[in-house]
Amino acid sequence: MAVLCKPAIAVPENVITNEETLELARRLHHDHPQLDLALRLIKNTGVRTRHLIQPIDVVLKHPGLDERSAIFEAESKARVPEVVVRALETAQVEPSQIDLIVYVSCTGFMMPSLTAWLINKLGFRPETRQLPIAQLGCAAGGAAVNRAHDFCSAYPGANVLIVACEFCSLCYQPTDLGVGSLLSNGLFGDGLAAAVVRGEGGTGIRLERNGSYLIPNTEEWISYAVRPTGFHFQLDKRVPGTMEPLSPALRAVAEQHQWDVGMLDFYIIHAGGPRILDDLSRFLKVPPEAFRFSRATLTQYGNIASAVVLDALARMFDEESALDGHHGLMAGFGPGITAEMSLGTWASPGS
Amino acid sequence: MAVLCKPAIAVPENVITNEETLELARRLHHDHPQLDLALRLIKNTGVRTRHLIQPIDVVLKHPGLDERSAIFEAESKARVPEVVVRALETAQVEPSQIDLIVYVSCTGFMMPSLTAWLINKLGFRPETRQLPIAQLGCAAGGAAVNRAHDFCSAYPGANVLIVACEFCSLCYQPTDLGVGSLLSNGLFGDGLAAAVVRGEGGTGIRLERNGSYLIPNTEEWISYAVRPTGFHFQLDKRVPGTMEPLSPALRAVAEQHQWDVGMLDFYIIHAGGPRILDDLSRFLKVPPEAFRFSRATLTQYGNIASAVVLDALARMFDEESALDGHHGLMAGFGPGITAEMSLGTWASPGS
Repeated sequence: MAVLCKPAIAVPENVITNEETLELARRLHHDHPQLDLALRLIKNTGVRTRHLIQPIDVVLKHPGLDERSAIFEAESKARVPEVVVRALETAQVEPSQIDLIVYVSCTGFMMPSLTAWLINKLGFRPETRQLPIAQLGCAAGGAAVNRAHDFCSAYPGANVLIVACEFCSLCYQPTDLGVGSLLSNGLFGDGLAAAVVRGEGGTGIRLERNGSYLIPNTEEWISYAVRPTGFHFQLDKRVPGTMEPLSPALRAVAEQHQWDVGMLDFYIIHAGGPRILDDLSRFLKVPPEAFRFSRATLTQYGNIASAVVLDALARMFDEESALDGHHGLMAGFGPGITAEMSLGTWASPGS
Repeated sequence: MAVLCKPAIAVPENVITNEETLELARRLHHDHPQLDLALRLIKNTGVRTRHLIQPIDVVLKHPGLDERSAIFEAESKARVPEVVVRALETAQVEPSQIDLIVYVSCTGFMMPSLTAWLINKLGFRPETRQLPIAQLGCAAGGAAVNRAHDFCSAYPGANVLIVACEFCSLCYQPTDLGVGSLLSNGLFGDGLAAAVVRGEGGTGIRLERNGSYLIPNTEEWISYAVRPTGFHFQLDKRVPGTMEPLSPALRAVAEQHQWDVGMLDFYIIHAGGPRILDDLSRFLKVPPEAFRFSRATLTQYGNIASAVVLDALARMFDEESALDGHHGLMAGFGPGITAEMSLGTWASPGS
């Protein structure tokens, strides 16, 4: 049985508050016809602080894609090993015991992905399978958990390392001036996460079922334009309303498992924005408090893309409220529009 | 038991011969200090023809990354559905019976990948899992087969669609003038492939074991520089010599399965270049004739990246030489330097 152990999380040292973001938006876009709307949207995110790999004045100056690619690689190599080592230690798994590395990152592009470098630097076996995913966006955290789960089903006893490395600030595009872009500039933050899925033993969520759901004909609602300046994030204004069509999919996965999606013991949900959590609470008939881990991630770090679900999960571990046998749901949402859903039961060794 | 059925292959309509490539290289690079070496390397590829999505005079003019991204998306949408439909028909599987789409493409970037669009356009279920892989380069064909195999092990009876879409000509960079780049310009071609891995029934290779191997400390030997002009392919001159360190890995995977890697009935190998096949023949003590499928792909299409192994496999189906119970090896090679290896047995319904 695959158990998702406690994620290790890291956020960078440069902090920007929501007040500073609003002040910046006022200064940079003082003549923007929809400035008031953008400020209201940014206020309503509920984000209090975000953490960035570079000081904000550096982030705001696009140095060109050559330089951004170099920063993405250098910062990945500087910051990923620490969370990986910590996740392995927490799970009490040696690098040599890892059979697959699922590496997700949508805010920069490297080929090869960092998996090859990690194997060389951190003592993983040359036979370790590599699964880099760049195109599932914020849903990739959930997808990583689900593909790790599948791998452990295919190879009982195997161990999987999941890594999420998101430097959203490297996708800041000063020339993108739509309201959606202004909102995104105030919503996304940088963050890293790593977690081990143990094939045997371990404390955490015993993964029992997973599923995916694509809302029909929404593939253009979240997308990248790939341009000489890098990835340009394009957000359709209909995206915040997607919990209505996604709720039945979450309900259906739970029903397949004979669980009632509204009556679970814990929820680890991608906090893409505040309305996602509010709407989901309403549609699933779950008290808002059930999403406290996700809300705390959004408040303290902003939307850190694929790392959100892992950070929210780490907060549940820290709260120490989960008991053996507690049932729960994890769900990542991202481009497609795709939901990556997972059902599991809290387990500790011997439970 | 997962069976890899016959791949459907497509190559674009614009053909360029090796003679035309050499003539072009002489004209464009007449003052290049290493022109003779580049011409010799291109001659030695053994490539006779390559197929391109655009006429060569269009390929040679870089229209900027905005335009290239638009072409990549438009050509993908124009060309992928046909191979997908054909692969499904060949395997006698309906779109609604597909549980996972593994989509591999390293020669352009889209988020979301084409999986979302395919699900919407071709009648796959919204619950179909999506696994887009962009960062395994030429090894991704082998990786797709292996992850499909793992998925079928996790979910017995499940069906997986594999799609490889490679437009290498959209990575042509006129300003890259190193000998490695000049060689690549004469080696890579465009091509598409799709294949179904059936969880039950089907004619083809019954997948039995897979493995991956990373040659230590070679992660910089094949890479992309991500620049304002797009992906710049960077090929180290040591790459053609990698079959010496990879052969023991191929041997080891076979030995784990109690098979002798030099005595198999068929070989489906990534034809990255002519030396790969020559060296592998020598190191595995396999007659050159055993690699005839891969060599035919290289000769007729050039290196079509992740689609090579699927095209070589389609040629084996066409030869109708495989018999029930025949043992074989598939192997893709790509950045990392990574080998994605698979062992299987030819099977037809009832065998």
